[in-house]
Amino acid sequence: MNSFPLSRRLVAEALGTAVLVATVVGSGIMASKLTSDTAVALLANTLATGAILVVLITILGPISGAHFNPVVSLVFALRRKLNATSALAYIVVQIVGGTAGTILVHAMFELSLLQTSTTIRSGGAQWLAEVTATFGLVFVILAGLRFRSEAVAWLVGLYITAAYWFTASTSFANPAVAIARALTNTFAGIRPIDLPGFIIAEILGGLLAVLLVSWLLTDAHNAQTLTETEPAP
Amino acid sequence: MNSFPLSRRLVAEALGTAVLVATVVGSGIMASKLTSDTAVALLANTLATGAILVVLITILGPISGAHFNPVVSLVFALRRKLNATSALAYIVVQIVGGTAGTILVHAMFELSLLQTSTTIRSGGAQWLAEVTATFGLVFVILAGLRFRSEAVAWLVGLYITAAYWFTASTSFANPAVAIARALTNTFAGIRPIDLPGFIIAEILGGLLAVLLVSWLLTDAHNAQTLTETEPAP
Amino acid sequence: MNSFPLSRRLVAEALGTAVLVATVVGSGIMASKLTSDTAVALLANTLATGAILVVLITILGPISGAHFNPVVSLVFALRRKLNATSALAYIVVQIVGGTAGTILVHAMFELSLLQTSTTIRSGGAQWLAEVTATFGLVFVILAGLRFRSEAVAWLVGLYITAAYWFTASTSFANPAVAIARALTNTFAGIRPIDLPGFIIAEILGGLLAVLLVSWLLTDAHNAQTLTETEPAP
Amino acid sequence: MNSFPLSRRLVAEALGTAVLVATVVGSGIMASKLTSDTAVALLANTLATGAILVVLITILGPISGAHFNPVVSLVFALRRKLNATSALAYIVVQIVGGTAGTILVHAMFELSLLQTSTTIRSGGAQWLAEVTATFGLVFVILAGLRFRSEAVAWLVGLYITAAYWFTASTSFANPAVAIARALTNTFAGIRPIDLPGFIIAEILGGLLAVLLVSWLLTDAHNAQTLTETEPAP
Repeated sequence: MNSFPLSRRLVAEALGTAVLVATVVGSGIMASKLTSDTAVALLANTLATGAILVVLITILGPISGAHFNPVVSLVFALRRKLNATSALAYIVVQIVGGTAGTILVHAMFELSLLQTSTTIRSGGAQWLAEVTATFGLVFVILAGLRFRSEAVAWLVGLYITAAYWFTASTSFANPAVAIARALTNTFAGIRPIDLPGFIIAEILGGLLAVLLVSWLLTDAHNAQTLTETEPAP
Repeated sequence: MNSFPLSRRLVAEALGTAVLVATVVGSGIMASKLTSDTAVALLANTLATGAILVVLITILGPISGAHFNPVVSLVFALRRKLNATSALAYIVVQIVGGTAGTILVHAMFELSLLQTSTTIRSGGAQWLAEVTATFGLVFVILAGLRFRSEAVAWLVGLYITAAYWFTASTSFANPAVAIARALTNTFAGIRPIDLPGFIIAEILGGLLAVLLVSWLLTDAHNAQTLTETEPAP
Repeated sequence: MNSFPLSRRLVAEALGTAVLVATVVGSGIMASKLTSDTAVALLANTLATGAILVVLITILGPISGAHFNPVVSLVFALRRKLNATSALAYIVVQIVGGTAGTILVHAMFELSLLQTSTTIRSGGAQWLAEVTATFGLVFVILAGLRFRSEAVAWLVGLYITAAYWFTASTSFANPAVAIARALTNTFAGIRPIDLPGFIIAEILGGLLAVLLVSWLLTDAHNAQTLTETEPAP
Repeated sequence: MNSFPLSRRLVAEALGTAVLVATVVGSGIMASKLTSDTAVALLANTLATGAILVVLITILGPISGAHFNPVVSLVFALRRKLNATSALAYIVVQIVGGTAGTILVHAMFELSLLQTSTTIRSGGAQWLAEVTATFGLVFVILAGLRFRSEAVAWLVGLYITAAYWFTASTSFANPAVAIARALTNTFAGIRPIDLPGFIIAEILGGLLAVLLVSWLLTDAHNAQTLTETEPAP
């Protein structure tokens, strides 16, 4: 995977995050233009987002790892799969790419290119939802890589499909996407002032998943060896 | 699969059942907040539940077998794939995990953490639906393991997707999930007093599937050998 | 596949057709109880039917071939993959199983067990739709078996998902299911008097697919050899 | 793939494009007959189109490559995977097949066989949407072939599922399908006078994808070798 030079990996991260954000924001705009039933709109939003995640992770994963998400890049840096400089570069281009995705969608739908959201998303319950959503996302990625690495694209797409509905925040679970969504005053928006709460909750959720995985998914043989060498009582 | 120590397998069962219940209950709450069309709400409920089942079984199956369901653990114990003590421990943590899933969802949606459902789900037709739903679920798992074990996660997710709609009870098919759903007075709830009928029907359906499988899916070569060695009349 | 004795193959065909019909009819009843938007009802019907087809073909295919459809059994008999007696037995148990599926659903939904439909489905346009639908189904099965046999379950499920919407008849494409649907006066019903037109159209569509496949998918090397040995003009 | 004679490859392209257009147009007609909620109609349209793409590409890909799209045939010709004469023949039969698909659907739904659309789809924003949609489609195909060729059918189906919602034009992304959709005055139609703008945008999007891929996906080892052999400054 890392045989691609960093320049191309960064283009892959920017492109992937742009298309991901374009899908989240664009499908929200399209859906709310076509229906007054918010659940139908969220179904469309869910279907489009889940589908594009499978596609983007499958085709860009071999180039950059297909993070598209600062929390994921942070987690890979913590687990020494990505060096700190690359991780920082990944995060920068994810934010730039995500922002470009929002602007592209505004152009396609003939809306003001630059907007800020007025949708309130705040409070302890929303933050708990983001902790939960991001915990689940990172856990799915790490456990998926451990047991069925070729299926991770599907697992992430399906996880987000479910998380849009079972978390009260509709599962942002991604600081770069959250920032890009603060720049649209449409269905998928979030007030800029609500970003810090979401981003902190997302980082916290990701770290909790790393902790759990470091115990739960340690190589089973090693674990048993330790058990076997335990002194008898 | 059983190379993981029991402690981790129990955590996997509790975690998986918690997320499964959180998805069933949470997506029901989200959907009924967003629409007045009950079929749209059930579609969202179905999509989220089917998707998370594929994810959970894929990533936790290699640790614990991904039962998340006392009937499934009972069936594996009957088929000598799980010893009685482990099966009992599995069932306990499934119920605990499921209950935790309901409480987590209530916290995310700012509802009273502890509730009891008032939704009536009772009578012979509902019980017949639960026998049917659980018969199908256990049959799918056992036949899937026999012929395409790597596909079981998909098969279960797709089976439940269909069973939500073709059974009159929307296919609980799981005593731990049923108990957890008795603790929420929302879309997915069931009155506590209606639990025994559902649970008995679910166990009955599971046992019927075991009976059918023990005849239908016995190794074909053995079966033919027996036929060939039948004494001529 | 044929290493299973005929008795078990017939049980698999009956069981599979019963569950298929239960899904088609049951999801239609459930959906029309929950919504007044017929497109939402057909979406639910589609989702459930597509999902159960993937499941049933995957788990019963290794036993009986998972036809669940007299046209498919006829096609396999014509192509010498099934002898005439077995094909006839397959067709009988498909009809019996399908009828049982309808009755089971009526019991689960507390409706009269025995009904006849009053839904008119007749006329040239409907028959053209059934020819098209069944042509497509048989073509997908035969081409799928030729190129990606492990994917046939998915291909059939996805094909029917599309065909429910692009054919004007919602794609019955199956005489056994059509007969079973004549026995329910609910969403998925068809008047008994309209059965002959549908069944003839379905057989015709299947035969057209066999004709096309016998030319289009003949082994390419053989075909080229023939071309190479053509006498020069 | 090219071991099939050209005649059969052309039949496969015509048949595939016909069924694809029949699905796009037919599911639009069916949906708009059944609901007044346009988002529900587009959901049905999306589901049917995504599903049939997976099926058609899987079963016809081994014969003709399953382009069903003049831009894709043009791209393969530019990349020397298809000679110019074959590419031209492919494009002709795609247009003929697509037109036949529209007429078949009109017959099934008892509509006038020959129609022209009056739906306005024009202007810079729509063209930007078509550039984006086709760029994405061609990028997905080329990157998919490079990294996971056995998954291309799924990738295209899922990409179009998302693109129907995130592009403001609902992602035609295909000149043959666009022409066929100009011949129906129903849900999926487009005014004939709007075709040139769409087709030019689609070709442009496809060429942009080719450019990006020729840099981003060049074999990584070669790329690094070149870097290593660069003369020091």
